[in-house]
Amino acid sequence: MMRTDAEHAERMAKKKAAQDSKVAARDAEKGLIIVHTGKGKGKTTAALGMVIRAVGHGMRVGMVQFVKGAMTTGEAAVLARFPEVDFHAMGEGFTWNTQDRSRDIATARGAWEEVKRMIADPSYDLIVADELNIVLRYDYLPVDEVLEVLSTKGAMTHVVITGRNAPDALIEAADLVTDMTQVKHPFREQGVKAQKGVEF
Amino acid sequence: MMRTDAEHAERMAKKKAAQDSKVAARDAEKGLIIVHTGKGKGKTTAALGMVIRAVGHGMRVGMVQFVKGAMTTGEAAVLARFPEVDFHAMGEGFTWNTQDRSRDIATARGAWEEVKRMIADPSYDLIVADELNIVLRYDYLPVDEVLEVLSTKGAMTHVVITGRNAPDALIEAADLVTDMTQVKHPFREQGVKAQKGVEF
Repeated sequence: MMRTDAEHAERMAKKKAAQDSKVAARDAEKGLIIVHTGKGKGKTTAALGMVIRAVGHGMRVGMVQFVKGAMTTGEAAVLARFPEVDFHAMGEGFTWNTQDRSRDIATARGAWEEVKRMIADPSYDLIVADELNIVLRYDYLPVDEVLEVLSTKGAMTHVVITGRNAPDALIEAADLVTDMTQVKHPFREQGVKAQKGVEF
Repeated sequence: MMRTDAEHAERMAKKKAAQDSKVAARDAEKGLIIVHTGKGKGKTTAALGMVIRAVGHGMRVGMVQFVKGAMTTGEAAVLARFPEVDFHAMGEGFTWNTQDRSRDIATARGAWEEVKRMIADPSYDLIVADELNIVLRYDYLPVDEVLEVLSTKGAMTHVVITGRNAPDALIEAADLVTDMTQVKHPFREQGVKAQKGVEF
């Protein structure tokens, strides 16, 4: 597929024209409901990247962690370096570690009240509900209540929801949905354990 | 799918046992070659999240940006707040903006030399080659050379390579590959333009 320089220049010029015309056709701005789901890695990590990106724009960020373990105290300490970021780790460990449904429901409810407070406060530009999907999956919170609250968010507020198994109704309501699809994972294939900087 | 509390506790106990036994079987530690590819969002953003995660662990990070635009000056300024992060923005804009193949090849080569230098330096724990896949896609760098250099990396060094259309040979060589799959995007469906904090 080697091309001459002239062919290449022509191809790139066409590509640029197509790109420019597509961009010109888009002029709407709105706060988005964003979902990161799927079995692969990168759901929480990409949300963390969005937090940093938002800080780079001087935006105010709220982040609520529904399930402990997705972020370590080290990462929480990094977020604490940013006065723009209001970070709350509410989870008490994965549910298969507690085996107490009513306690898990109460924990989920506490985290959700924090997200609701942020959504009702117009000073937040970006709100991350990390691993909320897991809580919805176990029926610890009703998805209808989550959708109801999301429908009240500010017109320019972005809300990011992460976790496997996003409910269909949430995908339906969302503006931007990405499925992190696992192609290859060294846990399974090479017996490699979770490592700092990669898994946590 | 509502379960009684007892059924739930039993199910969670089984899940925990299965999880514990899987974790116990994995004891290898190694530096990973990690690829974020696919058409969806989150490839660069998740790499950015990994940078923050690594900083949280006191790791030293190198990041080379092959294509300008994936990160803004605002984000670069955030990274500059971390002395642990050595960030280089080498790209001169997407190739369809320059339309000059030989210049693009020289730019790609310059960025790659920076990555090679980091890979040869054992003080880096995590190295991100952001949008390297795009450069490989346009044959601006030979994939064989990239694989050759990756094979010389330190045993505990993690290297993250992002961008659409990762070459098959790179996926073959990688340990951890995630495809960010686009499920829903407001560009296409709602005419929403690229917005700060989300796209850049």
